[in-house]
Amino acid sequence: MTANSYPEKVRIVEVGPRDGLQNHSVDVPTKTKIEWIQRLCAAGVGEIEITSFVRPDRVPQLADAAEVTAALPQDQNTLYSALVPNRKGLESALSAGLSRISFFTAASETFNQKNTNATIGESLDRFRALLDAIDHQTHVRAYISTCFGCPYEGDIDPQAVVEVVQKLLDLGVDELAISDTIGVATPAGVDLLLDALEQCVDLTDKIALHLHDTRGTALANVYAALLRGVVNFDSAAGGLGGCPFAPGASGNLSTEDLVYLLHGLGIETGVDLDQLIETSLWFERELGTSLPSRVLSTFRARSTK
Amino acid sequence: MTANSYPEKVRIVEVGPRDGLQNHSVDVPTKTKIEWIQRLCAAGVGEIEITSFVRPDRVPQLADAAEVTAALPQDQNTLYSALVPNRKGLESALSAGLSRISFFTAASETFNQKNTNATIGESLDRFRALLDAIDHQTHVRAYISTCFGCPYEGDIDPQAVVEVVQKLLDLGVDELAISDTIGVATPAGVDLLLDALEQCVDLTDKIALHLHDTRGTALANVYAALLRGVVNFDSAAGGLGGCPFAPGASGNLSTEDLVYLLHGLGIETGVDLDQLIETSLWFERELGTSLPSRVLSTFRARSTK
Repeated sequence: MTANSYPEKVRIVEVGPRDGLQNHSVDVPTKTKIEWIQRLCAAGVGEIEITSFVRPDRVPQLADAAEVTAALPQDQNTLYSALVPNRKGLESALSAGLSRISFFTAASETFNQKNTNATIGESLDRFRALLDAIDHQTHVRAYISTCFGCPYEGDIDPQAVVEVVQKLLDLGVDELAISDTIGVATPAGVDLLLDALEQCVDLTDKIALHLHDTRGTALANVYAALLRGVVNFDSAAGGLGGCPFAPGASGNLSTEDLVYLLHGLGIETGVDLDQLIETSLWFERELGTSLPSRVLSTFRARSTK
Repeated sequence: MTANSYPEKVRIVEVGPRDGLQNHSVDVPTKTKIEWIQRLCAAGVGEIEITSFVRPDRVPQLADAAEVTAALPQDQNTLYSALVPNRKGLESALSAGLSRISFFTAASETFNQKNTNATIGESLDRFRALLDAIDHQTHVRAYISTCFGCPYEGDIDPQAVVEVVQKLLDLGVDELAISDTIGVATPAGVDLLLDALEQCVDLTDKIALHLHDTRGTALANVYAALLRGVVNFDSAAGGLGGCPFAPGASGNLSTEDLVYLLHGLGIETGVDLDQLIETSLWFERELGTSLPSRVLSTFRARSTK
């Protein structure tokens, strides 16, 4: 006897053009990125993190951030956002016309040190300074990396995540992207963390889950989170983000797989799955490599038979 | 606030040597199969469907069924079973010394016709005749294919599955392997079907779920079923069973991914995951191809870096 109820509607934040491409070792022409994003918009994706305004010497894959942003037409149905690591990136993003900005920190002190050369406390101080320079119309998302496990520290205590979340909420951040950076979470860990988080935040409002499908558990984790009322999930079209030289080594949760699950549960996403698949098949041809999405693979298999 | 409880222990039926290999287009030497099965036993896999006694002209991949069975040492910790399609296969399996036998039928009339050239009713009549020839010590499993969706008929009504289950229980079958043959299920469908099934059978006893990970939803489906008390799950080491010429086109749920999820939930399986992964990495080298398991891919990526 079930009494499961799912949210009626889920908001998907497409992170392929940022989190996917920044980990992709093949150079993707700016023109292709722009066409990809426009095709994703046409497929009904409601929000896209289109790039990151980072130092080109650090992430050459996204050196064309300003160019990509400038080339995109305003789309009435799609919101654009970008990741920024510092004041310079923030200024570039704002002057490019973006009104949705993402920052990042981590729940693991060691990971944050290695990734940003700052303690978690220092990265929160940086946020404070940046937030002071932003008007209240700008939507601010904060990624918290390694919320479930860290490559250096192993398991992460949910209380460590709660502390960072609480501080970010105090700073006035609009959304928290709780990230399973290395894809180790299972539904038990999701439940434990949500148990801890709901002591300080409404799970149905400011929480987004950013899952990687490294060990195949991402959709089980989505399902566990849906049962708890979470309605915001990140994903990358095609599952882009894995290492292209290790086929099957998946990175981000694939948008196709996420949408397939959500539609199967009767949950609205606004996405036209067929059109999204067409887009990813086109993008695979442009990249000259296959993407790790499971749903996508059934179409690829069909079209090569 | 969660009150999720999972089973303490799950029984995994490893179907790679049968369901994996029968769909594998590369010829695997008998010697390699035997070593594979022995390595799976050593990794703690409690039950293995080792082969199928089918016509060699129909499934040449498993033409060595008797030879494989004869070569395996009795293992105190592992149970062996085999699939049989008819009386001849049954007799061969029994005379090879097996005491666990599987039959198959389907929930979709069209699929059963195309797969076995018989109506569901006719296949149940065949079971009846075969069961009369088997002593009560023999454990009998019945696979019911296409319980969630059929390539010809589309969605399958849970009541159609219940009818077949009821008839099989009346025949005295010990276990029902509820199969998502084409990998279309989502947790909503799992819940609906389990709602229907629990009207006539104890979900914690005679029900096994046989899931394919074609669209990436298998572990979410496992999780939904665990929440309902299901404790028997099929999987194939490495996720063998997909088409080797379409990388990522996954077939059976991978045993590694299943074990990773279950251990993450604190559920006992008896399997040593590290040893299982070692076994699959060895088997990949023997096959000369990579297997679709996600967990496995993280180790492959590591070892080629």
